[in-house]
This record gives sequence, C-alpha cells and structure tokens, in this order.
Amino acid sequence: MSNLRGIAASSGIAIAKVYKLAVPDLTIEQKTVENPEVEINRLSQALEVSKQELEIIKENAKKSLGDEHAEIFSAHLLVLSDPEMIHPIHDKIKSEKVNAEAALEETANMFINMFKAMDNEYMRERAADIQDVTKRVMAHLLNVTFPNPALIDEEVVIVAEDLTPSDTAQLNKQFVKGFTTNIGGRTSHSAIMARSLEIPAVVGTKTIMSDAKENDLIIVDGIDGDVILNPTEEQITSYKQKHAEFEKQKEIWAQLKDEPTISSDNHHVELVANIGTPEDVTGVVNNGGEGVGLYRTEFLYMGKSKLPTEEEQYEAYKSVLEQMGDKPVVVRTLDIGGDKELSYLKLPEEMNPFLGFRAIRLCLERDDIFRTQLRALLRASVYGNLKIMFPMIATLDEFRQAKALLLEEKDNLKSEGTVVSDDIEIGIMVEIPSTAVIARQFAKEVDFFSIGTNDLIQYTMAADRMNERVSYLYQPYHPAILNLVNNVIEAAHAEGKWAGMCGEMAGDSIAIPILLGLGLDEFSMSATSILPARTQIRGLSKQELASYKEQLLSMSTADEVEAFIREKTNQ
Amino acid sequence: MSNLRGIAASSGIAIAKVYKLAVPDLTIEQKTVENPEVEINRLSQALEVSKQELEIIKENAKKSLGDEHAEIFSAHLLVLSDPEMIHPIHDKIKSEKVNAEAALEETANMFINMFKAMDNEYMRERAADIQDVTKRVMAHLLNVTFPNPALIDEEVVIVAEDLTPSDTAQLNKQFVKGFTTNIGGRTSHSAIMARSLEIPAVVGTKTIMSDAKENDLIIVDGIDGDVILNPTEEQITSYKQKHAEFEKQKEIWAQLKDEPTISSDNHHVELVANIGTPEDVTGVVNNGGEGVGLYRTEFLYMGKSKLPTEEEQYEAYKSVLEQMGDKPVVVRTLDIGGDKELSYLKLPEEMNPFLGFRAIRLCLERDDIFRTQLRALLRASVYGNLKIMFPMIATLDEFRQAKALLLEEKDNLKSEGTVVSDDIEIGIMVEIPSTAVIARQFAKEVDFFSIGTNDLIQYTMAADRMNERVSYLYQPYHPAILNLVNNVIEAAHAEGKWAGMCGEMAGDSIAIPILLGLGLDEFSMSATSILPARTQIRGLSKQELASYKEQLLSMSTADEVEAFIREKTNQ
Repeated sequence: MSNLRGIAASSGIAIAKVYKLAVPDLTIEQKTVENPEVEINRLSQALEVSKQELEIIKENAKKSLGDEHAEIFSAHLLVLSDPEMIHPIHDKIKSEKVNAEAALEETANMFINMFKAMDNEYMRERAADIQDVTKRVMAHLLNVTFPNPALIDEEVVIVAEDLTPSDTAQLNKQFVKGFTTNIGGRTSHSAIMARSLEIPAVVGTKTIMSDAKENDLIIVDGIDGDVILNPTEEQITSYKQKHAEFEKQKEIWAQLKDEPTISSDNHHVELVANIGTPEDVTGVVNNGGEGVGLYRTEFLYMGKSKLPTEEEQYEAYKSVLEQMGDKPVVVRTLDIGGDKELSYLKLPEEMNPFLGFRAIRLCLERDDIFRTQLRALLRASVYGNLKIMFPMIATLDEFRQAKALLLEEKDNLKSEGTVVSDDIEIGIMVEIPSTAVIARQFAKEVDFFSIGTNDLIQYTMAADRMNERVSYLYQPYHPAILNLVNNVIEAAHAEGKWAGMCGEMAGDSIAIPILLGLGLDEFSMSATSILPARTQIRGLSKQELASYKEQLLSMSTADEVEAFIREKTNQ
Repeated sequence: MSNLRGIAASSGIAIAKVYKLAVPDLTIEQKTVENPEVEINRLSQALEVSKQELEIIKENAKKSLGDEHAEIFSAHLLVLSDPEMIHPIHDKIKSEKVNAEAALEETANMFINMFKAMDNEYMRERAADIQDVTKRVMAHLLNVTFPNPALIDEEVVIVAEDLTPSDTAQLNKQFVKGFTTNIGGRTSHSAIMARSLEIPAVVGTKTIMSDAKENDLIIVDGIDGDVILNPTEEQITSYKQKHAEFEKQKEIWAQLKDEPTISSDNHHVELVANIGTPEDVTGVVNNGGEGVGLYRTEFLYMGKSKLPTEEEQYEAYKSVLEQMGDKPVVVRTLDIGGDKELSYLKLPEEMNPFLGFRAIRLCLERDDIFRTQLRALLRASVYGNLKIMFPMIATLDEFRQAKALLLEEKDNLKSEGTVVSDDIEIGIMVEIPSTAVIARQFAKEVDFFSIGTNDLIQYTMAADRMNERVSYLYQPYHPAILNLVNNVIEAAHAEGKWAGMCGEMAGDSIAIPILLGLGLDEFSMSATSILPARTQIRGLSKQELASYKEQLLSMSTADEVEAFIREKTNQ
C-alpha cells in the first residue's frame, strides 16, 4: 500500500485496476530475411489488426464525443489502405530482403520527410497521420502492447504521464472510472476534460507512473486529491463509504436542479457552465445550468487535419443554441496558440508561448479564419440566445477591430439575404491585467465582461500556471486579484453592463462568497460544480458579504483573505 | 545601396566597414594519415595560435570590462595547456593514424560527455569550456576564420544575428564603432550593453546578416534606427553631418553635467543611472548622474564557471559605493533565470521562462546563494549610500521573507564584529502587476519602490517583449500602465516613501513629461540618456503636467496618450 497526494481535478471516488497509458519502446533492428513472403504476411496481419482497432476507436469516439473528434481516425484508416504507401514497403522487403519492421520504418520515414518538406498545411498533416499510424503497426509487428484507451472493456483507472486531447477523445466513461497523472494542474486540459466527462481525477502526483504497476488496485479520490495504490481492506471499505456519501450528496444537490440561484437575502445570480462541445450540453442541463457562460470553440479546431468549415461550425453552434433554448450561450471566439497548438496552422515556436501570438492576436492577423467563425456564429444566432466574446483582449484597439469585423460580416450576411439576430451582445474576456486595470474605459464600449481568472491570475502574478516550481504563486485570493475583479465589476455596473467570471475561481467555495459580495452577476464553471455552488449561495447573505468589501480589498496576503472567509462562512 | 530599419538601441552615428560575427562551418572529415608527426605539429601550431589569441582577448576584456569578465578566458587557457587533454589526442593520432581534426574531435567529445554526465556544477562548466576552446582550435586546423571581436584592430561595425554576453565582453570601443543585429529589442541584453558602452547600435533589423557582406561600408544610425549598406557619397556626407550635430548636441548637454534636475517651476527630481559593473560608474559620473538607480548584479554571476564568492562581490559593491561617494546606489539583488541563465546553476528548462522560476523566487529557495550576496552587500554598506531592492516581488510574503534573511545576516555580521551601516533603505522592484495593484499595502512595509517597466509592461500586456509577433503590444503609454504607475507613486507618497523607475520608459521623451506630472521622484536610465533628460525636464512645468493627470488616466489607448503629450510638449 502506498499513498500519493496530487491536485483534486474532478470530484468523486474511483476504485479499479490500474491501466497504464505509455507508448512502448518501438526501436527496431534491421535484419536480412530468407523468405520475403513471411515478412509480407506479417506486415499484412499487423495492418489488419491496426485497421480493426482504429475502426472501433473511431466508433467509440463518435459515440462519446461526436463526429468531429472521430475524423482524425478516418484519416488514419485511409493511410492503412493506401496502395501508394503499402506497395513500396512490399517492394523493399522483396528487393532488399529486409524484415517488415525495417521496410516499414524506411518507407514511412521517406513519406513523412517528403510530406513535411512540402509547403502545404494539408500535406504536413498527412505526415503526422503516417507517423501516428506507423507507430501502431510497428507495435503489432514487434508484438508489444500499444495503448488503446478506446478499446478498454473492463473497469479501470487510467494512469499516465499526462493525457493528450487525442487520448481523452478515446475515453469511454462506462469503463474508465477515473484517472491520475504525473503532471498537470486544476486548469490543465486533462483536468478540464475530466470534469466535463464527470470522471474522478487527481493530477500532478509527480510519481504515479513509476509507482503504479499494471493491474495494481488503485483508489482515486478526486474530492481531496489522494491516490492510494494497493489499498488495505479497511481503506477499500472506507472509500466505498465515501463514494456512497458523495453519490448521496449529489442527490441532495440534484433537488436544486430547477431552483433559481438566490442568496439568503434574495439576491439572484446566474450559475452557468463552461463547455467544449455540443455533447457537453446534456451535462449542463442535467446539472441545472442557467446557461452556458463559456463555450470554448477550440475543440472544433483541434485533433483535425484542417480548419473546420463554416458549415461544420454553424452546425455545432446551432446545436448548442437549440439545446439551450432561450437560455444565454456565451461563445468565446478561437483561443488558439499558447499551450493549444494546431499542427495545420504552422505557428512559429515561441520562447514564452503564454505571452505570445495567440487568440485575438492571431485572429486579427489571420482574419480569414476569424471571419469564417464569425459568419458561422452569426448564421446560428437565430436559433437561441447568443452572446459573443473575444479572448485575450489587451487594448481597446483590438476590441474595436474585432467588433468591426463582426459587424462587417453581419452586413455581408444580411446583404446575401441571410437572417441574423439583432440582439447579440458583444463582450470580452478580461484575462489580461491591462484590461482589468482600465475596465472603466472598456465598459463604455463592450456589452459585458467575462473575467477569465485562469489567465488573469497567471499574468497578474507573472507565474506560469503549468509550472510546478512557481505554482505557489497561483493565488486566486491574492488581494491584487480581488482588487482587479472588483474594478471590473464596478466598471461594468457603472455603465449598466454585467460582469461574469469563467475561470476555475468562479466555482471555488472560498471565492464564491467573495465574488457574491463584490457583486459578480454571472458565475460560469464546470457543470458538475453548479449544484454545489447553488447550495452554497442559497446559504449566504449578499448584504453581509458586501459589507466586508473594503476590508478584503485592503488585506495584504491571500492567506489573510482565506482565513477571514473561512471564519465568516464556517468553512 | 540598401536601407534597413530596425530598433534604435543606442544613440549616435557609426560609419565603418562591416565585420560579420558568425561561427564558421566546423564539419570535419576523418582521414588516415601516413605521417602522424605532421598531424601532431599541426595540432601544436593550432593550440599555440589559440593560446595567443586568448591571451589578448583576456587582456582586452580586463581593460574594458574588468577582471570578472576576463576570468572565463583564463579557464579556456587552462584547457589548452592541460596535458590530460593534449596527450590523449597525440596518442590517438599515433595509434590510429588519423588526422589531427578527427583526434581532437573524438577526444574533446569524450571529455565533454564524461564531464557533462557528472552531477557536479564545476565539471559541467568544464565541459562547456572544452567545447568553446575546441571550436577555436578546430577553426585553426581547418584554416577557417574564427570570429574574435577582441582582436579587431581597425574601425568596424559589427554585424551579427545577436550578440551574446561573451561577445560583448570582447568589444573594444576604440575599434568597434557600432553594431547592428538581426534580432533583439530596446531592452535586450545587447541593446543595454550598447548604451552602457556608448556604442551606436540598431537591433532587430531582421535581415542584416544576409544583406551585409564582409567589408561592405555601412552606416548605423542609432538615433533613428536606420542602417544603410554601401551608402552613396551623398548619404555619407549627410550622415557625417548628422554625426557632427550629435557630437555638438552632446557638448550642449554636457554643460548641464553638474546642474541639478529641476523643472521650470522648480520641482526637483533625481536623475540616476542603470549600471551593470563597477566599470560603468565612470560613465555615470561623466554623464552627470545623481546616483545609481539600478545596479544589476547579474553580471557578477554571468560568463563564469562558478558562483562569485562573497569576497568578489564585496569588492565589486565596495568599488561602486566608493566611486559614487555620498550619492545613492540602489543595488538589485540577483535576478537570474528567465532569459538570463547560468550554466553552473543547472536550472530546469521551462515552457515560459518569463513566467518562471527566477529572481527572488530562486533566491528564496537557494538562500545559500542569496545570503552570500546579502552579506557582501552589508559588508560594503559602510563605504557609501547603499539601498537594496529585491526583484520580481509578487506577494508581501516574499518581501517579508527576503527582508528577514537580510536582517538575519546583518545580525550575524554584527555578532562577528563586522561594522554594517544602519541606514540601508530596503525596497522592491515593482515589475509584477499584482504588486503595482496593491502598492498601498506594500508601501506600509517597504522603504521605496522602483518601477521596472520593462517587465511590468510585458506582464501587464501579457506580451513577451522579445517576441516580434506581439511587439506591437509593448505599449509604455497604454493607459493601464499609466494607472499602475500612478497607483505606485500615490501609494508611496501616502506613506512618506519615494518612488523611482528603472525601466527604459524612465528615459523616454514622451514618458518623461507624464512621469513628472504623476510625481515620480527618481528616474533611472542609461547613463547616456541622463543629460538629454535633464535638458528636457528643465523646460517642463511640473504643475502644468500634473493638471493633465486625470485626463491621461482616463484615456482609452496608447496612441491617444502619445498624441496628447506630443501636442502639449511640442514633440
């Protein structure tokens, strides 16, 4: 038995066998063979098994995450059946009498290098596909296990260094009971996905990959951030009980599903959800969300071989709007770059990607990409209550330019005869300190603010939120953060606008009383956090909390703030 | 003739021949030789020439930049004379009958890999020395030119991709008339060095390395940021005139050398200088500096094989303090990490080094390094008017911890019988947005603020100041920056403390009127900017500028601010 502590990334308890997700050693040796036919047969078998696996993975991805996420696997399947790829391998085996592994590697590398060298986004993406597929086929030739999370058919807890978007695209909630990783924090991609899938998760354990062995029994406690390897009988019993209590708690929360979010002194706020795909809307509705406060549109652009078309985007936006009815849906335009790269966009490598060419900075330069998204959004606007916001706004010029492009495309659509809603609110993410500081100037021109605390905190503290060595500086309760948040809320209200928050902070039980007191209008969080937050808010007095405002804003440290709130709210 | 535009990094005009600084191709071929003695002779000659070069480089570095900068070359010379390094090369030539190049490469690589593998800072640095020296010897064996800026003995303009600290350590002002680079900005290392050496420089030209040919005539206009290759006779005449005018202007400025810095309505501010080494003090005195506002102590730690001792540091600090007499000297404690790495410290690679483990973050963890510096500073304090400030402070906790260590070492020294000044002011750099936002809380505990705008701007705008693609967001006049600066000044004055600024902004002719109006007490800049700034301030009315404060702070964009100031101050 051994205990590890990590970061609680998604609530709940999982108890199951360890399934380790690690790419095996695929080093090969070139050998001369006597009988080339044997090698060609081995290759055909490896190709066939790979195809079967990919078909299943593709179907699973379709079911659990939607068509878009499945497309990458269709591309992989095409490679496996392409005679232009397969014949040269056969030729090499026959003419050079080498083993299948060597022929596969050489041929694949030739294509990869050729495609990579072409100045064409599509061809470069083909190179990536070939690279991925070759690994799978090679693993079968070498008879080593290639991890296929999509093929899991028994209850497991996934253990990994980290989970990539394409790994998470394969997770089947029916069998994957939880996961735990070496790296990551509460705002890393894998943590966000875990909450979206409602799978218990603990990230940032540092050593779980070396500590855990395949098939070890493991407990993941996503409530407190504990991971227990090979637990004792006592521990199993106690965690089963904790699991049962958590399920019971969820039932109590569920009773508030259709209730409004009002404080004990009758002040109403809006509790809405962060989503990534149209499939996430079910979770929002099931968890009593009063709308979508942040629709991250990046997923439409990720794990694909090319940019999504206007039509694909239109369908996705329309689906979310229709599902949400008259409830508000705040869509954030493309925030790519930084830690989210797109292979087909060929962005330059940057020394500090978090301070680099991303989001609105990229969209204003590549306005072809931006206009396509804006057109899709505008066309979908008639199907619900759409609000649009721009990410990473640092200057009023950027907002004015982005808004001008939006209005231009609106005019274009209207003159083409397309119906577009005339009630679309246009707002911004407040996630760069400069914008929070002069929120007063912005409030005159935007329709609303949504404070993106994940980035706002990292920039305000000058501390990379993914870097473990400075993670102690990621302090949501730092008085500077509270002052900036307060400044944004006051600026909005002075101009009759509303202010929301869509960072992790909005769902945090220490932050909620502070934000309620500061007058935040909208709290956007993981769908699973909504009911606990509603329960908490119904027990809080807005007026009492507002009376602490000056005191809180004058405090010196985050610890002081936290201690004060814990005392006042009995936490 | 061709024209290029870059960033004016250091004032003045240079007209001279191009000297390109590029590492030559050192690829070698292994050959079997008939007569090993010939190869051994060739090696000895290459070693001898390398030694002679390094001796000269070392002497030049001592003269122009001081003993510390020369130490790295002593280490290189040791390698060249080390029998444990030379004998194995001889053996290899004799026993394997290979050419000197192959024997040198193999032997050097063996040592480099062996030393690198040792878990010992000193040995890893030896590996780097061997690598450097091997390149030089190899260049002589291959008969290709190895660039030796220290050996330049005719007037040139250096053209390079970028200049490293060890390149700049070799520059001799007598012959190097100017330089121009492909990359970099006003706040990059090479730009700061150019101003410190008073050499005209234009950085960030993007293409000068490919455009310029060796011995081309080149004009570098460090006033306006222009570079002209193969100028016409007319251009040469016109730039010679511009050069003469600049020299004349400097003479007029020089008349204010011993005058106080007072505005037209008799408000006094302090104009002080940023320095990197004790040798820079001459420039401060010659340019009429009223003190040192920022002594960057990093140079003591850079270009060396190990940490500087307490004694070495003590001598450097004492030298600066003694030279400045009773004028204030603000020393910034170690700001390493980010773009400034130390090979012997073995810092982990970071995805966003500017948001990473650097400066006070590193010093509080490695308090052995920090305490050594603090002790050296405290011991030197009796020789002048010392003030100490900590870099990258984001929380009050960090300041309290750093101050506690300082006071602890002070007590230790006193109980050892060492005399320490009791009037040392302890302040902080304000370069992280969180600190600027809650300056009110900090002002109660610190003795002074020094606003570091280079970093404050990049964090407030979330834009890497070294990244060309987002350089348009490096906006010193952004109203958010002005609001933060104002907040810091007001907080300081409310507690009877003073506020200075030591970023590039403090010497900028648009920023100076704004800062004077906001009530900034101390302006720290490149020594060469002091006299132009004093001239400007003597023509400005503090009271008039103060009356624009509310108007400036409510503006929407940097352009609006700049246009307003240009109009009000006729620029």
